[in-house]
Amino acid sequence: MTNLLLKNVRPMGQPATDLAVVNGRFAETAPPNAEPVDCGGRILIPGLVEAHTHLDKSLLGLPWYRNEVGPRLIDKITNEREVKVSLGLDPRIQSERQSIQSIGYGTTHIRSHVDIDTHHGLAGVEGVLATREKLAGYVDIEIVAFPQSGMIIRPGTVEKMDEALSLGADIVGGLDPCGIDRDPRAHLDAIFGLAEKHGKPIDIHLHERDALGGFSTEEIIARTVALGMQGKVTISHAFCLGATDRAYVGDLQAQLAEARIHIITTAPSSAPVPAVMELRALGILTGAGSDGFRDTWGPYGNGDMLERAMYVGQRNNLRRDDEVEMALDICTFGGAAIMELADYGLAPGCKADAVLVEGETLTEAVVTRAPRKLVLKGGKLTARDGVCVLTAP
Amino acid sequence: MTNLLLKNVRPMGQPATDLAVVNGRFAETAPPNAEPVDCGGRILIPGLVEAHTHLDKSLLGLPWYRNEVGPRLIDKITNEREVKVSLGLDPRIQSERQSIQSIGYGTTHIRSHVDIDTHHGLAGVEGVLATREKLAGYVDIEIVAFPQSGMIIRPGTVEKMDEALSLGADIVGGLDPCGIDRDPRAHLDAIFGLAEKHGKPIDIHLHERDALGGFSTEEIIARTVALGMQGKVTISHAFCLGATDRAYVGDLQAQLAEARIHIITTAPSSAPVPAVMELRALGILTGAGSDGFRDTWGPYGNGDMLERAMYVGQRNNLRRDDEVEMALDICTFGGAAIMELADYGLAPGCKADAVLVEGETLTEAVVTRAPRKLVLKGGKLTARDGVCVLTAP
Ligand SMILES: [Zn+2]
Ligand SMILES: [Zn+2]
Repeated sequence: MTNLLLKNVRPMGQPATDLAVVNGRFAETAPPNAEPVDCGGRILIPGLVEAHTHLDKSLLGLPWYRNEVGPRLIDKITNEREVKVSLGLDPRIQSERQSIQSIGYGTTHIRSHVDIDTHHGLAGVEGVLATREKLAGYVDIEIVAFPQSGMIIRPGTVEKMDEALSLGADIVGGLDPCGIDRDPRAHLDAIFGLAEKHGKPIDIHLHERDALGGFSTEEIIARTVALGMQGKVTISHAFCLGATDRAYVGDLQAQLAEARIHIITTAPSSAPVPAVMELRALGILTGAGSDGFRDTWGPYGNGDMLERAMYVGQRNNLRRDDEVEMALDICTFGGAAIMELADYGLAPGCKADAVLVEGETLTEAVVTRAPRKLVLKGGKLTARDGVCVLTAP
Repeated sequence: MTNLLLKNVRPMGQPATDLAVVNGRFAETAPPNAEPVDCGGRILIPGLVEAHTHLDKSLLGLPWYRNEVGPRLIDKITNEREVKVSLGLDPRIQSERQSIQSIGYGTTHIRSHVDIDTHHGLAGVEGVLATREKLAGYVDIEIVAFPQSGMIIRPGTVEKMDEALSLGADIVGGLDPCGIDRDPRAHLDAIFGLAEKHGKPIDIHLHERDALGGFSTEEIIARTVALGMQGKVTISHAFCLGATDRAYVGDLQAQLAEARIHIITTAPSSAPVPAVMELRALGILTGAGSDGFRDTWGPYGNGDMLERAMYVGQRNNLRRDDEVEMALDICTFGGAAIMELADYGLAPGCKADAVLVEGETLTEAVVTRAPRKLVLKGGKLTARDGVCVLTAP
């Protein structure tokens, strides 16, 4: 493996310096054989962390899909299950396409929810597992077994989830225990049961709003504490924490902090969202993700986690530089902490997963989102000028 | 003036055809001397309309401004008035920089609010007037005389507004009659008085929320009707129309429709916003704008009105292709209707103000926001591959 000397580089926007990469990790000093890389005074940040997406089902690389889907959540779920068949969507190819696009934007770690249902079985998980193997050394992929079509309302799904976890899925997913499965007790008992059986963490989609989502959250907290799973449970979206009754939300957040439950947000502009400043003040680990993009749910998104940092900033009305830097921290260190990434960061000894970005300051890098000059994964160059060194299928 | 034959072009995403430009306007047929332009099967849309921005005070082209401003509206207003002095901000240069950037993104028409206060007097208006003259033929600029620091609380401002309107400002601006001036009656009487005296329309910033903004809106409606100014008054932002009491908002919107008052939105993700689908269903003309960007208020934004169409779509949860096309319509025909632009569009006889965009469909063009291949203003090429033919100062 080539050792590097990153010259004239500004780690986290600090004054320019040289930075050594030895055996794929940042180091105090470079050996004589280190290859110099001129960074042109650009800012270096650790690899962007995509903490919530859906690798198995974007429509990237396919002819334009004209969206004429109905307005309800169940319309989108049903349509998607059907369209996957009519388009012949291949999770292996789609996950590889999306991952390669993300690498180009500087993402080095991805947590992907992957659909599991009685119609498509484990096809999604098998496809993303194949991509994970193929892209090893370019991007790290975590797989969440995700019951997108419901679990209790579709008998046989729990068994498929169980299989997926045996096959290599890392995390137990879940979805709106009231809203979709209409049976919160059965839903939550099932996913916490799977987590206990496999010794794996949980990451549950929770779109339920206001008191309904609050109820589900309380039930998640209760099970987390009962099973001693503090620090191992994440709630994605958590729209209920964006409710207007801030006293109630404050109480809920205090309980989440105590149970060490993490929050991942996509900072959507059309739904209530958790207030990231409040979460961080309480010590709740907070990450961010693109969610699904360019899919049958909608046309938006691209996997750019600098753009996501911008969305987090805009949605939370973060205007000061220190605040925008916090939004970026959510898309780097925040997601990394939730995913328990070892040796993440720019300090000596950390894995050399990093991105060279454009801008005078971190905030300028976020708001301009210029093509990434260079992306490193374990000290290896994986993208240059916004384009991954790998070619998408 | 060179006549053109745009070859292999898809107007509004329709099948490919050839389109003639004669004497700066679209025409049925091209004369023999028309210069062929290969459009490569790309989509042509009419020039993007930036219906709400602040040309006089972006910080484009300056060293990075580290924002450490306080959280309240008045903090931002006071800070800005002072920073303009300490940075020596030149409205002529800044407005030229921003306009040229916007042209690169395909904007052909701009409505700019321009600050007027007792400290800086008419410096802003004079600067933007100079830019308007300099960039004539490249972009059309409308100037709103805007009392950013308040009018009633800063005696002498109304007189400056009056001067600005005599000097060439096209529209009377206003700002939060309750929230800033603390005297809605005096504020609204002043701006409607100026409008009547100069025979000019009104475009008022209204950030006031819920019942407060509703009250100001009712007062605006009353004066619009009393003075027979139907069709000549615009409310920018109108956060109060994003209130949760939809019955009240519905009643307010019906009154706005009857008084033919227009709405311009920037679709911010951190504030309540008017529901554009509802406005359109009521026949209320709806436009969009970037608002100020890269300024002392915050670091976000770039003037890209395709990106703004995306924000309008995201903020209003528009996912279907026909809905995203509506968001784009707001950023083209919507703003054009409010600004009463003559001969706007791609039909024969219309001025050849147009943009060649990338994508298989209009929706893809909006969500990908790739550099604009070509921008035409009155049949003249003003930008290519995302870059304006003019060089910014
Ligand atoms: Zn998701
Ligand atoms: Zn404004």
